[in-house]
Amino acid sequence: MLKATVYVTIKKSVLDPQGVAVQGALHSVGFQEVESLRIGKYMELTLDTDNRSEAEARLRAMCEKLLANTVIEDYRYELEA
Amino acid sequence: MLKATVYVTIKKSVLDPQGVAVQGALHSVGFQEVESLRIGKYMELTLDTDNRSEAEARLRAMCEKLLANTVIEDYRYELEA
Repeated sequence: MLKATVYVTIKKSVLDPQGVAVQGALHSVGFQEVESLRIGKYMELTLDTDNRSEAEARLRAMCEKLLANTVIEDYRYELEA
Repeated sequence: MLKATVYVTIKKSVLDPQGVAVQGALHSVGFQEVESLRIGKYMELTLDTDNRSEAEARLRAMCEKLLANTVIEDYRYELEA
């Protein structure tokens, strides 16, 4: 069993309307110091395998196929040590 | 200027319907090894302050007030080294 963490974030070149909205909300309740805010997805997975190289290849395939929209999103993943 | 990262995840005791749905989708496209999947929010902020202790207190307040629904969500944050 391996634990993995996947981070999916909107590409820097793409506008993040959700981030802009939340930043505005933070400003409206008094947190003026927030200069920028970008929101992404954070996923914790458990994989029924102990083969690290296979798990990495499969995680990449999961991200490319389903977890991330690679046109506008970047992804990265970490396998537990 | 300080960079912070905030992670907001659904409490372990709370069902994560989005995670269950994505896990099912992964299974349907052939990734049977995914035993569990939980989805959360991942935020990257820049704060217009260099005072670390103040930034930590303000981040906690932001999470408690707006970024996390503390009834069903847990949050944690990291300040860049």
